Amino acid sequence: MAVYTHLGADALADLIAHYDVGELLSAKGIAEGISNSNWLIETTGAGGQGARFILTMYERRIETADLPFFLGLLDHLSAKCCAVPRTIHDRAGNAFRMVGDKAVALIEFLPGISVDCPTAEQAHAVGASLAAMHVAALDFPMCRANALSPAASLAALHHAGPQALAMIDRDLPALLPVAKGIASAWPVGLPGSVCHADLFPDNVLMLGNQVSGMIDFYFACNETMAYDLAVTHAAWSFTRDGSTHLAEIGRAIIAGYEAVRPLGVDERAAMPVLAQGACLRFVASRAEDWLDTPADAIVTRKDPMDFARRLSFYAKAGRAPFATGA
Amino acid sequence: MAVYTHLGADALADLIAHYDVGELLSAKGIAEGISNSNWLIETTGAGGQGARFILTMYERRIETADLPFFLGLLDHLSAKCCAVPRTIHDRAGNAFRMVGDKAVALIEFLPGISVDCPTAEQAHAVGASLAAMHVAALDFPMCRANALSPAASLAALHHAGPQALAMIDRDLPALLPVAKGIASAWPVGLPGSVCHADLFPDNVLMLGNQVSGMIDFYFACNETMAYDLAVTHAAWSFTRDGSTHLAEIGRAIIAGYEAVRPLGVDERAAMPVLAQGACLRFVASRAEDWLDTPADAIVTRKDPMDFARRLSFYAKAGRAPFATGA
Repeated sequence: MAVYTHLGADALADLIAHYDVGELLSAKGIAEGISNSNWLIETTGAGGQGARFILTMYERRIETADLPFFLGLLDHLSAKCCAVPRTIHDRAGNAFRMVGDKAVALIEFLPGISVDCPTAEQAHAVGASLAAMHVAALDFPMCRANALSPAASLAALHHAGPQALAMIDRDLPALLPVAKGIASAWPVGLPGSVCHADLFPDNVLMLGNQVSGMIDFYFACNETMAYDLAVTHAAWSFTRDGSTHLAEIGRAIIAGYEAVRPLGVDERAAMPVLAQGACLRFVASRAEDWLDTPADAIVTRKDPMDFARRLSFYAKAGRAPFATGA
Repeated sequence: MAVYTHLGADALADLIAHYDVGELLSAKGIAEGISNSNWLIETTGAGGQGARFILTMYERRIETADLPFFLGLLDHLSAKCCAVPRTIHDRAGNAFRMVGDKAVALIEFLPGISVDCPTAEQAHAVGASLAAMHVAALDFPMCRANALSPAASLAALHHAGPQALAMIDRDLPALLPVAKGIASAWPVGLPGSVCHADLFPDNVLMLGNQVSGMIDFYFACNETMAYDLAVTHAAWSFTRDGSTHLAEIGRAIIAGYEAVRPLGVDERAAMPVLAQGACLRFVASRAEDWLDTPADAIVTRKDPMDFARRLSFYAKAGRAPFATGA
């Protein structure tokens, strides 16, 4: 969480002049985004009334190729009244521009704050917003593969190797055969759409019990919709370290989702393995990040065991966590 | 530049409820401040119209004792229409509150952006705003000593020692006798007020050619006013590495200052040594930070030589840089 690139006042003003948003009034680097730099920008606005935006600079080249997908998705979803920020296009119609060798995009600012400990009512709203997004994205014409599938997570854990994994936690190598089992049992043919694939509480803005924005779509991909619901269930319905499942929150996520898009019989049956696969994805990426990050680095390493505990819960719990009591 | 402390939605809402500013709408951690965490906060406002604030959490205990000075100064100056943000007091009248063991203050948000390469007109406005602040602070009743006097800077360089200084740059140990000379020649009895003491471009917000805000008063102290002008002159009228003096910008800083508060004969005569002392202060603090920061740290170390070069310029240039052509 940092601002990696200095954007001076002149460079900012030059950039903003390409958009029909008025004059620059303020720019604050904000501490959001892991691989991007972000600024909260205020301008005089196109119609004389002040306007605010998030200016994102994409620091990693790999993402630039995916920008038409990510930014086009925001436009597609916001046009269908999903709670996502729209992309501001420049006067020439471009969704992103280059500043030097880096791509930048101007994104609508949405109010709201991220909750730490959601209520069931808030969790219900999150499930419903996720389902609405899935339905709205069904006819999105672009495609992006999920780079973090169970097979990819399994490969990443194998690449790290049991010795390195044991250095993170002695219980971690035992996940290698578990991961193999999940990848083998992975369901195919379930209904898909574009999925957020990372809908943690810090990627959801709320005003009271309403979802005012889903943000940070930079893992979005074409995937099984029920998998996205499983990711969201795993991200929201546990204490941070994964040691305690919050059953009421989990039920509210599922109930909220089904209020908008009821799960099919095959999707419901697949939820246990999908949830284990969701946990595996975060175990694998966190283990990779852990091994890549020096122990004395300023960046806080996230513990892969937080999701190994969730995985263990789902492996034992069967379908119970996904029942809505109906 | 980071957000050091996580402040959750509930903690934020609890905090904001102590102020007459309406409901919380948004909170973004911003990448400003070296030893503080800062959030840009939006609320519904006291009168129904949206309002914005900077929420600052003071991470270092040592500053808490100085908060009545810093925050009282903002109130004193803004009441006199200086371009500084006012402190928002809570319903009980407190300028700051404790969240756990850390002090927090709610500060007015001011628009504007920090310029990288000021024009002479902008530099003139900065000089004038500094002078207006000095005049307005003359009757501020509280007092805070300058912890970064030439004597303190000399002591810091001696404490580091010539060997360590040479590891930063081989030319740095030669500043030890120079520092001793500056401390010995330091003028006494020049007119004083409360000084900002750190008025670099990133601590000034501008809208066009107007100063919309002077911020980050956490080095403010009772000092010789002409010293503060010398700090500002050194901070603004050079290329970043200090290798080139920008004479026109320097003249504009002085002219702007004198348009509001003309320098006395004794102040004008002291400018060369005050400017060298100003440079010495930044050489010493940067050298300390450099030696305290691992070479592979993510934080960018600022090069003490940037101000050693400025010091060398002022030592040779005499009174010429401070003449306004009048």
